[in-house]
Amino acid sequence: MASDATVDAYDELLERYERISNIQSAAGVLSWDQEVMMPDGGTPARSAQRSALSATSHELLVEEDMEGALEAAESADLSGEQAAVVREIRRQYDRAARVPTDLVAEISQTTSEALPVWKEAKAEDDFETFAPILEDLLDLKREYADHIDSSRPPYEVLFEDYEPYLGLDTAERILDRLREELVPLIDEVGESDVEIARPFDGTFDADAQEALARDALDTLGYDWERGRLDTAPHPFSTGTQFDARVTTRFDEEDPLGALTSTIHEFGHATYTLGLPDDEYGSPLGESRNLSVHESQSRLWENHVGRSQPFWSLFLPKVKERFSGLDDVTARDAYEAANRVYDDNLIRVEADELTYHMHIVLRFEIERALIEGDLDVREVPQVWNDKMDEYLGIRPETDADGCLQDIHWSHGSFGYFPTYSLGSVLAAQLYESADAAIDDLDDDIESGEFDALHDWLTTNVHSHGQRYTTPDLIEEATGEAFTADYFLDHATAKYGALYDL
Amino acid sequence: MASDATVDAYDELLERYERISNIQSAAGVLSWDQEVMMPDGGTPARSAQRSALSATSHELLVEEDMEGALEAAESADLSGEQAAVVREIRRQYDRAARVPTDLVAEISQTTSEALPVWKEAKAEDDFETFAPILEDLLDLKREYADHIDSSRPPYEVLFEDYEPYLGLDTAERILDRLREELVPLIDEVGESDVEIARPFDGTFDADAQEALARDALDTLGYDWERGRLDTAPHPFSTGTQFDARVTTRFDEEDPLGALTSTIHEFGHATYTLGLPDDEYGSPLGESRNLSVHESQSRLWENHVGRSQPFWSLFLPKVKERFSGLDDVTARDAYEAANRVYDDNLIRVEADELTYHMHIVLRFEIERALIEGDLDVREVPQVWNDKMDEYLGIRPETDADGCLQDIHWSHGSFGYFPTYSLGSVLAAQLYESADAAIDDLDDDIESGEFDALHDWLTTNVHSHGQRYTTPDLIEEATGEAFTADYFLDHATAKYGALYDL
Repeated sequence: MASDATVDAYDELLERYERISNIQSAAGVLSWDQEVMMPDGGTPARSAQRSALSATSHELLVEEDMEGALEAAESADLSGEQAAVVREIRRQYDRAARVPTDLVAEISQTTSEALPVWKEAKAEDDFETFAPILEDLLDLKREYADHIDSSRPPYEVLFEDYEPYLGLDTAERILDRLREELVPLIDEVGESDVEIARPFDGTFDADAQEALARDALDTLGYDWERGRLDTAPHPFSTGTQFDARVTTRFDEEDPLGALTSTIHEFGHATYTLGLPDDEYGSPLGESRNLSVHESQSRLWENHVGRSQPFWSLFLPKVKERFSGLDDVTARDAYEAANRVYDDNLIRVEADELTYHMHIVLRFEIERALIEGDLDVREVPQVWNDKMDEYLGIRPETDADGCLQDIHWSHGSFGYFPTYSLGSVLAAQLYESADAAIDDLDDDIESGEFDALHDWLTTNVHSHGQRYTTPDLIEEATGEAFTADYFLDHATAKYGALYDL
Repeated sequence: MASDATVDAYDELLERYERISNIQSAAGVLSWDQEVMMPDGGTPARSAQRSALSATSHELLVEEDMEGALEAAESADLSGEQAAVVREIRRQYDRAARVPTDLVAEISQTTSEALPVWKEAKAEDDFETFAPILEDLLDLKREYADHIDSSRPPYEVLFEDYEPYLGLDTAERILDRLREELVPLIDEVGESDVEIARPFDGTFDADAQEALARDALDTLGYDWERGRLDTAPHPFSTGTQFDARVTTRFDEEDPLGALTSTIHEFGHATYTLGLPDDEYGSPLGESRNLSVHESQSRLWENHVGRSQPFWSLFLPKVKERFSGLDDVTARDAYEAANRVYDDNLIRVEADELTYHMHIVLRFEIERALIEGDLDVREVPQVWNDKMDEYLGIRPETDADGCLQDIHWSHGSFGYFPTYSLGSVLAAQLYESADAAIDDLDDDIESGEFDALHDWLTTNVHSHGQRYTTPDLIEEATGEAFTADYFLDHATAKYGALYDL
């Protein structure tokens, strides 16, 4: 049993953290609004508002007596859960205390200003207008990393904002292995004579696509009482366990794009909604980190949404929404959902194989930018050269090249690797869920997703930040983090599809 | 010239205030989202977020060294504008410093919880489910008033949150005069044999109504780059000079209702958008208070939107959106927009005359509630009795009676009188604008609103909180605040309409 003094020190710490957590989730609402609802003219005020919130939450985290409050809680007699809460607050505090509040506010202000600049640059295909503010952001984030730990390479430090526990060496090891094993596989696919079905060529009305996206969310079990679907130029999901929203976008030439991005964001939202209600405001009620988050979006997108049983289930809905598809079979749809496009330039539209080459490229470029080995002005050239090298294609515009992603305008350098880590983890988790559930393929084909939701909630979502990333993976799968399952899955799936 | 020390003390104070102002406008975004976008399940997190923001802004305002910062600024050599900034921060500080942070957080949390309870109670016509939380809110606001000034009646203290400078005695004097002079006028209207045209009876598609609301905003000159239109159960406007949004609602049986509420909220948004951009975050970039805000919404709603020249201008747009109106004349539409409905129970649907009786009733009830002279359980009965007394009608449901307004669920007691004060002030300001502009009626009829916008921006909006309410009125109109112009306007307009 905990003593009264223990309870006091712990409760006092948690109460401080709840305030900070609420200010941060309030800032999340402002970001959602900025990207989905806000009129363009609102930027100056929104920048100032977000800057005020991030400076305030930073100041609250690094208040003078916070070190004392942490030490009091740390020296108390804590349960495993309480110790995890204190560990996570300590980790955030140790990083934040080293960064001056002014710098935090400046980063927030600059990222708010960068968003419309990036949007405009992308719309106008004009990298030069984005370059100056990108340079400012790189300087600011280097300065930020330097405050946290000047003894280590800044990119390694920044990466830990998104994935604090796996380490950049693990990320690099995984990315190297993906490149080594996937590049030959992608080559083989490119040389295959197999004709993949193209049942969804043509034009598909955006309103009907939106209705279909809602069908997909209904089918998979999205909780509309705690969510909503909107459009955004760069799809994302955000929120809390009480309100986790999904965005997507519609391209009339590419109905599968909106559908897979909707399912992807659904996976994120499902993780958020699976966090325990009664731990709201505590690290136990917050998601582990971006790698684990991405494992949930990728699991639903790739292992469910791109599977044969899903297409047996879902194709009839597609036929209800669009005419002219009477002769399409579930096998056709499955093939189309897994086609490896040898001319695709866009990360979010990539198949499960080439996707990782998009990440490797970004990882290499942003690391070089942060480490000062690459000048901002060289980015378009280097980007295009690497696309050529890894995928044999070359963007004709920067809008389809280095301006396609929102992340750098957010100042998020070190974020991209978590996408590949998440995809790899998705395969490992799906394997465990599949082993634990009687007949998961049958479940999917008959629209029964409860067992999968339950397994994921029990083994991943409900823990919040109870475990570090390696421990969470070990708890959920009985094994250390490994790329084996993803590579087995990719080799088997694409081998069968392309008759390799 | 200001000395360096002056500049430092003033700038330091303003910088603190900007942080607070930004946190408050961030909270405004969260409120807009809660009423317009948020899924129902989001309430617990939203309550906690809003509570965290309001507690934080309160704590920043009452920080230990704030008194010193204020005194340093006050003793400096300030310009008139700087002195106004300091005066406004001092006023907020003096009130806030007396209220414990815990109470502020509790009020915020309780109002967030009350909103869905009120919505449900209104939907179910069940006052009993709303009564307990209304009682909690009354207790909390009484406690709040008591902290600020226990020597004065709590309602007088609460009223100053919404209108700090005119005084409750002025409000009461104006409301008494309105009751005395309008009740006989309303009686005369009721006895008149004049048949007012009813060209808009029937059913009007909500989507077409929305298009028409957008037409109205276009016509009046709404800046869509800094705004948007959405639907909300209780129309409101919120935002900053960079992003001032309008909401409305559509009733297929009452197309004029949506239109007038849109024009009303447009008036609010126009005030907000007219605040100076470069004073954002300072009291000089914030609106004066609710009375002045309401004067702007009422000016556009009543003096423009319910005028004969406006209907000459706008009726063709209505005919474009709806069929079957070919024979309707501008005079018919003008009459319909000014009809005094002898059976209307709803404040926001009331004409210019009976509107004030709705306010008098609320003022009397909420004052009695706060002063402890009326029990919450008695509200429905007293409400209905007073409706009978003032307007000769009796609500059949509480949804059409004491549950119709959102304000009490916000804990806003003392807010209602500002509606009547604003309407009265609208007439006084419109008279001055009319005198200053060559031919305002002609302008309106030809869709030229620039001169009116300019006059209002120059004389009201651009000042922010530079002047107190009485001084602002004096500056803009050359006279003290008076109900004369409103009563002249009402007597002349309704006398002519009803042949009195």
